[in-house]
Amino acid sequence: MPLAEKKLIEQIRRSARGGESVVRGIGDDCAVLRVPSGHELLVTTDFTLEKVHFRRDWHRPELVGRRCLTRGLSDIAAMGGEPRAAFLSLAVPGDVPQKWVNRFLKGLLDLAEEFKVPLAGGDTAQSASGIQADIVVVGSVPKGKAVLRSGAKAGEGIYVTGELGGSAAALARLAEAKPVGAESLRHLWRFSGQSRRLGVPQARVAVGQWLRQHKVATAMIDLSDGLSTDLDHICQESHVGAEIEAEAIPRARVGTGKKRVALELALHGGDDYELLFTSSAAVPNRVAGVRVTRIGHTTSSAGMRLIGLDGKKHRLQAGGWEHFKRSL
Amino acid sequence: MPLAEKKLIEQIRRSARGGESVVRGIGDDCAVLRVPSGHELLVTTDFTLEKVHFRRDWHRPELVGRRCLTRGLSDIAAMGGEPRAAFLSLAVPGDVPQKWVNRFLKGLLDLAEEFKVPLAGGDTAQSASGIQADIVVVGSVPKGKAVLRSGAKAGEGIYVTGELGGSAAALARLAEAKPVGAESLRHLWRFSGQSRRLGVPQARVAVGQWLRQHKVATAMIDLSDGLSTDLDHICQESHVGAEIEAEAIPRARVGTGKKRVALELALHGGDDYELLFTSSAAVPNRVAGVRVTRIGHTTSSAGMRLIGLDGKKHRLQAGGWEHFKRSL
Repeated sequence: MPLAEKKLIEQIRRSARGGESVVRGIGDDCAVLRVPSGHELLVTTDFTLEKVHFRRDWHRPELVGRRCLTRGLSDIAAMGGEPRAAFLSLAVPGDVPQKWVNRFLKGLLDLAEEFKVPLAGGDTAQSASGIQADIVVVGSVPKGKAVLRSGAKAGEGIYVTGELGGSAAALARLAEAKPVGAESLRHLWRFSGQSRRLGVPQARVAVGQWLRQHKVATAMIDLSDGLSTDLDHICQESHVGAEIEAEAIPRARVGTGKKRVALELALHGGDDYELLFTSSAAVPNRVAGVRVTRIGHTTSSAGMRLIGLDGKKHRLQAGGWEHFKRSL
Repeated sequence: MPLAEKKLIEQIRRSARGGESVVRGIGDDCAVLRVPSGHELLVTTDFTLEKVHFRRDWHRPELVGRRCLTRGLSDIAAMGGEPRAAFLSLAVPGDVPQKWVNRFLKGLLDLAEEFKVPLAGGDTAQSASGIQADIVVVGSVPKGKAVLRSGAKAGEGIYVTGELGGSAAALARLAEAKPVGAESLRHLWRFSGQSRRLGVPQARVAVGQWLRQHKVATAMIDLSDGLSTDLDHICQESHVGAEIEAEAIPRARVGTGKKRVALELALHGGDDYELLFTSSAAVPNRVAGVRVTRIGHTTSSAGMRLIGLDGKKHRLQAGGWEHFKRSL
């Protein structure tokens, strides 16, 4: 094992904390976990790749680490589950300074601490080129109670948590502004709602659990690829259509003027990590301290439709965040 | 989502098969798994990276896929566990032909079928450079019965399954022979024990389970990094030392002459995926059809010692397979 790799494992081992679910963590061939009896297991894996999901010269390492774990936690949230343990596979090329790795791990482990999710294992390797991270989050949910994408019926309300388009707006601004110096980059980060002050995306674990416990959500997904793409996933898996209203979509406010982001970004931008769900029950305006907004309803006719800001009905197609992905 | 990525997900989804443990597989935010009551969960993750663990011009894609899953299954075997489901995260750059991906998946899925382990999820992405795969295998073991690295006591026998050094010998030959034409490469593969005829590494799942069920193994690890490195892990975690005999180490036979590989390769070569375990019980010569060989014993004094082919006692240090890794 190369020294750098050995150091990395030791570092993760030192940083990792046990938890009630972890019988045996880092230091054996497998981690050993305990899941409450009567629970089913949830497993999700998500890549975070340099030059695909982040750029070392654009994104602070703490945020890259934080986003890496957020992606996994958010998937558990979307099933109404409880995260139990995380596993990190991390490959780093020789030219990446130790400081970058330290800051990446700090972002990831601070978030793990917030959610009381122990880092229970993973793998490390020297990469031939670029940083590659793969996060696995294992969670649990009472048997048969996971909220799937496939549970929606026609005529139900469609809801989202929080506000949409903030992350996409931040990335669009970074893309517009390049090349930029370190000073303006810091400014952009603050401006773009990615700083601690303005809030970074939060995995909605408590909201997801509340919606599952109170049998409110019939189908649920997290908004990682963008509203239009993720709503399409629910429609496909549930065999329903959808009609949503542009006016109703809660658009993030950014910048000093607190201007709302463009509709396009709220519709197709990704990385929001809010929850999208359907419900036939009465849904409160706030759940676990987070705003919940009704944006439309499911239909028996297939396909997605958008009532635009012009009041006219448009066909809506899955867009996703590939525009931004490509611009990296 | 780029088209290639979408195609890849659909392809994996089509290829993936359900299993009794998988309540919900690919197609939701998380996979939902069921683990038998009274069982604990085993989780392992392993990277397979181009130019680090394999070379596209040296290794057949089927073998890369097979080795990818073998690494995970072998970790479950080393705990005495039962594999329940696998998850594959796969990032492929645009210049890799679809055929390579198909053949890689075929190797992986054929092995999954052999072990009755459904591919229950994962992630796909377009890579900026090089192929990156991360395999997660989830298994289970009766509560409190996992065989750890830390259970060895002084004065116990040290055993290995199968024969060692075959994979390292194959890789060493490839490294010596480069650059080589396709014809000689095919010859080398046959010669080097990596072909189907001569057998590829096998995860020793049935052996691991037998050793656990019959309370034979006190500590266990799989030989992925090489005998000297993996024995050192058991010594460190169990706080014992070890003395092994060069003469007793079962060295793989390679080539038409069936010549035994050099001791160095059996001692420090990796990728054998045999099991290394300690025991104070009577150990049969064969377990689940696989040869088991006593190679030495644990000691109360720390450190590892080797009784060489010269009959003299040498200090043994963790070597591992970094020599070969570096030569890629």
